[in-house]
Order: sequence, then structure tokens, then C-alpha cells
Amino acid sequence: MLKQYLMTPGPTMVPERVLLAMARPIIHHRTPAYSAILEEVRGLLKELFGTQQEVLIFASTGTGAMVASVCNLLSPGDRALCIRAGKFGERWSEICEAHGVEAVNLDVEWGCAVAPGDVEAVLSKEKNIKAIFTQATETSTGVKHPIKELVEVAHKHDAVIAVDGITGVGVFDLPMDEWGIDALLTGSQKALMLPPGLALLSFGDRAWKLAESSKCPKFYFDCRKENKKIKDNSSAYTSPVSLVIGLKESLTIMKEEGFDKVYGRHDLLARATRAAVGAIGLDLYAPDSPSPALTAVKSGSMDGQKIVGTMRDVRGVAIAGGQAQAKGKIFRISHMGYVDRWNTVMTIAALEQTIKEMGHSFEMGAGMKAALEVISGG
Amino acid sequence: MLKQYLMTPGPTMVPERVLLAMARPIIHHRTPAYSAILEEVRGLLKELFGTQQEVLIFASTGTGAMVASVCNLLSPGDRALCIRAGKFGERWSEICEAHGVEAVNLDVEWGCAVAPGDVEAVLSKEKNIKAIFTQATETSTGVKHPIKELVEVAHKHDAVIAVDGITGVGVFDLPMDEWGIDALLTGSQKALMLPPGLALLSFGDRAWKLAESSKCPKFYFDCRKENKKIKDNSSAYTSPVSLVIGLKESLTIMKEEGFDKVYGRHDLLARATRAAVGAIGLDLYAPDSPSPALTAVKSGSMDGQKIVGTMRDVRGVAIAGGQAQAKGKIFRISHMGYVDRWNTVMTIAALEQTIKEMGHSFEMGAGMKAALEVISGG
Repeated sequence: MLKQYLMTPGPTMVPERVLLAMARPIIHHRTPAYSAILEEVRGLLKELFGTQQEVLIFASTGTGAMVASVCNLLSPGDRALCIRAGKFGERWSEICEAHGVEAVNLDVEWGCAVAPGDVEAVLSKEKNIKAIFTQATETSTGVKHPIKELVEVAHKHDAVIAVDGITGVGVFDLPMDEWGIDALLTGSQKALMLPPGLALLSFGDRAWKLAESSKCPKFYFDCRKENKKIKDNSSAYTSPVSLVIGLKESLTIMKEEGFDKVYGRHDLLARATRAAVGAIGLDLYAPDSPSPALTAVKSGSMDGQKIVGTMRDVRGVAIAGGQAQAKGKIFRISHMGYVDRWNTVMTIAALEQTIKEMGHSFEMGAGMKAALEVISGG
Repeated sequence: MLKQYLMTPGPTMVPERVLLAMARPIIHHRTPAYSAILEEVRGLLKELFGTQQEVLIFASTGTGAMVASVCNLLSPGDRALCIRAGKFGERWSEICEAHGVEAVNLDVEWGCAVAPGDVEAVLSKEKNIKAIFTQATETSTGVKHPIKELVEVAHKHDAVIAVDGITGVGVFDLPMDEWGIDALLTGSQKALMLPPGLALLSFGDRAWKLAESSKCPKFYFDCRKENKKIKDNSSAYTSPVSLVIGLKESLTIMKEEGFDKVYGRHDLLARATRAAVGAIGLDLYAPDSPSPALTAVKSGSMDGQKIVGTMRDVRGVAIAGGQAQAKGKIFRISHMGYVDRWNTVMTIAALEQTIKEMGHSFEMGAGMKAALEVISGG
């Protein structure tokens, strides 16, 4: 028997309650019954995002909401600062260029968080930067960016800031209205414990003002159109019914646990994993500003892809490898969503067995012990 | 007990086998296991579309694939002929205008199919029409357009033709390569018996040639990028894993029945419904070229919305009302996907009871009898 555990930073495990909710017979999207579901989801999403604004729902992956942010905030010829600290930062830049927006790139060494001072320096030097695009967590490196500070820098220079919270929203607190985040987005397959296929996006007042004059072509990702529709508990195009019903269930589960407790659990499991990694003599890829969403670990002299393959195929524990320049050099363990302390402990166990086999020298059990100590203390 | 039946032209009923397949624990999209699923789906989709080309998979509703068609075939300033015979024809026109493409509109009376001669006349008069956009079935009116003939007219005038087959593909035969259809698209929630959230799109050689020089901005719906990826059984962004796993199951179900038998069943149930409608003294909205996807019926002196509401809330049988100019004047019954002859018979039964109550004069049972006679003869 090889039981399967999905410890990848997206898709993440989907709770049985959510799977079963989505497996119920489908209903039509233009009915009072479905409008009532959308109304409940709207309220829960506002709580999750910490906003009075509507949270728009798109049938797309998170990348779709990134495209929606660029296309609804800006016009061709506008300039935007893209914080590139990994593969997903690069994506902001690619989306800008694809839509005729000039990307001013701030490149950050992979594994490091952006320094607000560096952003300030670019904004002081470069003229007419209308928007800043960043991640909350750069999933490819496991780093957490200082969003609160970045918002302050952005507003000081009259720029809006759009935050890709695909591995941020629901992972840790990102109170949109309180911090003044102008655009916040996420996808369904991370902390929200759903299959991929839903993107969520909310705009603050500054962003809506820009949206009024934005000239990038848009149709499927037209935020103003969706914003009008969702206020009537409706959608411009066919709503992805099953995923939204799953979202209602997963948000309910999160609320039952309490959003703060969910964030605390992610943080605890991330700390336990980092302690374990240190105890078995491996180095963190993002030691200075690690995200509680996932832990990226340097594989040292070992092939990171081989660790991932063995963990998945021999041990039944799926983790993720490195992407692009980090490929083969790191592996990544998720803490998001439907992950409990024993999932974390057994992932460390499977990791210990795997790297021992590959010749890495450490005292077997040291990782699990360190993890359990953190968990017991938390 | 009020059992629910979904007889709307999308979403349609999802077979239990598909619901259960999608309810299995989720797997990661960058794994050999998922690539094997994508490879099987690729093969089945090529059979369904009747093409040697790849069929691209997008995490979006069908509208996303319409946007992808416009944005990958054309450039701002290009001219396109949009066949507007209902709400979805109008959508082609709106998408063109949103992306800077000049829409030359051929307006067709709602309930009528476009005449190939009328298209020919526009193409002879107007210069530089690069593409024709049409529906296979105009879902808002229930009409079926003559796609084979339209392809011939398009090619005679060196235009490509893109066909919205959202209520066409899997409903009746649309052999893409044999007829020379340049772009064919569909969505998941119709004949494919899935929840909404997946769009499928295939380009022929002429379309791929246009795609090379297309200058409309695109990123999420970049067909050339996805075409490269799918050949490696992969996707540019996170694949909508659950829906694709559902798609594999639903295509397998269709293949087990046989695609031709599926088309025959849709045709039989549509003919049975049309016979029933006539027998209870109601008129078809699209009598001259009705689609086997759905039957649109004039509600005469009765309020169409009231018929729909009563059918759904009192009888448990969900059908659809009219949209835009047809609102209140028609109702629409689906024949697509997981619908059998008894679903059709009981829909007629519920309709008879409903309109009798509303004072419509006819011999009770006449509709069911007419339907059963067609079914028995088929």
C-alpha cells in the first residue's frame, strides 16, 4: 500500500468535506439557490481579504487574476515596477510587456526578500511609475516580502501596489483595507484547499479610480463589469459553479477553525519544518525572510529533483522541486491549507529516509525530534 | 420529496461517474501520473473534434476560448465578420471591439439561421475581412447555423472561420479537418457533461498561420504557448486538474456509447421534444433550422419566465428562459449530454402540467404521446 500525501505548494490537499460538496449534483448558475451561495461566499471572502470591497471571482488560474490586475489598472505605455525575486515576479514583468506596459524591473537575488529601501530608490529615480507589482510569497523561492512596508513606500510615491497573494491570502494575515493594499489576488489551489480553476481579486478605491481610465484591452477579465455583476450575486459569464460551491465549504471550514488559528498553524508547521531542516544539516533557501506558506531547502550536493522523485514515487509524499535557475538545487515543502502537524512530521520522516539513502550524513531522527519540539512548544 | 432535474442548456447534468472521478483526492499537475492523463485526454479530444491538431485546454469558461480566438487570429485594426443571430453572436462582436478589431456585423433575425448567401454578399462587398466569427448553435435562440456551407464561403473569400461550438461540439458532428473549420471551440458544461470552468480550442493550419502574425495583446490565452506545452502533455500555467480528470471520464463515457450514437440521441430527443411542442399547441422559436442541442419554444400569451420558475421551483425540472429581447417570450429545453429519453418525457409532462395550470388550452397527454411516438420510432 502506498498512500499518497500532497505536500506540494499548490495544488494542496482538498478536504473530504470540500470534495463531497463539489461532488453533489450541479445546479444552474442563474437561480435563486445559486445567488444565495454567491452571497454567502461574497461575505466570507470580504472577511478573508479584510476588505469592504467586493472580491471578484474569475474562472481561471491565479495567473488570470494577475493579467486582470495589469489590464484593469494600466494602459499601454504606462510604466510599472515589477519586483522580480523569482519565477512569479518574472511573470508580472512578462504580463506587463505582453500588454504594452513598460516593466521597470527590480531584480532581487533568488532566496531574498525585496528591501523596501531598494523600492524607494527606484521610485525616486524613475519617473511616472504608476503601479508596483509584487508577490506576498514568492513561491519559487519560499521568501516572504514585506507587504505592509511596500504599501507605505508605494503610496508615498503615488503609485498603487498590486499584490499576488496566491500563496499569501489565507496563509497569513494580509488585511487589505487596514494596510491599504490596492489590489490583492489569489488562486483556489493553495490555502483555500480547492482544485485549481478559480482566481479571486479585489481592488481598493485607488485601484478602482485607475480602472476607470485604463485602456488595456480587456473582456474576459473586465473587473468593472464583474464588480457590477457580483453586487447582484451574479457573474458576467457562466460561473464555475462546482468550484464556488467548494469555496463556500472551504471558507466555512477556515472560519470554523478561525482565520487567526489557520495562520498560526501555518506558522507553527513552517517553524517546525525549518527547525527539522537545520537539525539534519541542510540549509534553507530563504533563511532571512521565510514564508509560512512553504519551506524551500537547498539540496546541497544531492540532486534536488531526485529527492522529489523518490519522495513521491517510493515514499508517497509529493513535494516540489526547484524551478528555472533553482532546478535540481532545492526542494519545497508546503504548509498551506489542509496540512496538520502529523503531515509535517511524516514529511520530515520521509525526507530523512530519502536523504540518508542518498548518502547525506546526519543523525537519523534528529529532524523529526526538532519538528516535534517546535510543535509541542507551539 | 422534490427531486431535481437539470434540463437547462448549460450547465447540464454531470454523470455520477464524472462527479466521483473529480471527487478523488487531487494530484499535482507536474507529475508523470498527470501527464499520462493529459496524454489520454489529448487523444480523445482529437477524436471528438475530428482533427489531427492539438486541442488546447484553458482554465476558463467558453467565453475565454472566444477571446483566445479573436486575440490569436487577429491584430488591432483588422476587420472581422460577426454573425449576430442572438446573444452569443453579439458576444463575438463585443470581443472584437474590446480588442480593437473592427466588427462588421451581419444581423440575423432571432430564431433564424444565417443564410450562406448573405455571408457571401457581405464578403463580396466589404474588403479585407480576415475572419468570420459564428456559432454552431446560437444557444439564445436554439438555431443551428450551416457550418459546412459557411466554411466554403469563407475560404472562397480567403477568410478564416472560427466556430463557437459551445453547444455544438459533442452535440452533433462538426468534423473540423474534414470540413476545414479553421478554429473550433467549446466549453465543459454542455455536451461534455462537466461543471463549467474548462474551455477547449483547436486551430487548423490557416489559423496557426494567422496566429504567427497576430498582434493583439495576449498572455493568459496565448495559443502558441499552450500548443507547445500540450505537445509535452503539460500546460503553461497550473492545469485545472479536477476538471481535466472529469473530462477524461466524460470523454470515456461518450466513447463507450460512441460519438455517433451520442449525436443520434441528441437528435432523437430534440425531434421528440419538437413533436411534443407542436402537439400541445405551442410554436418553436427556431422552426426552420432547430439545433439538436436545445429546443426554444414560444410561450405565446403566457409569461415564459413564469413557466421556467414554476417548472423549477414546483416541479423540480430546471429549464431556461429567454435572454435579452427574447426574455419572457420563450423557454428553452436542453437535450445535451447526460439526458435520456425519460428525462425528455418527464420534462414534457412537467411542462404540460404547468401550462395547463396557467390556462393554456390543449389535450393533456398529447405532448407526452407525441414524444413517445418519436422515441419509439427512433
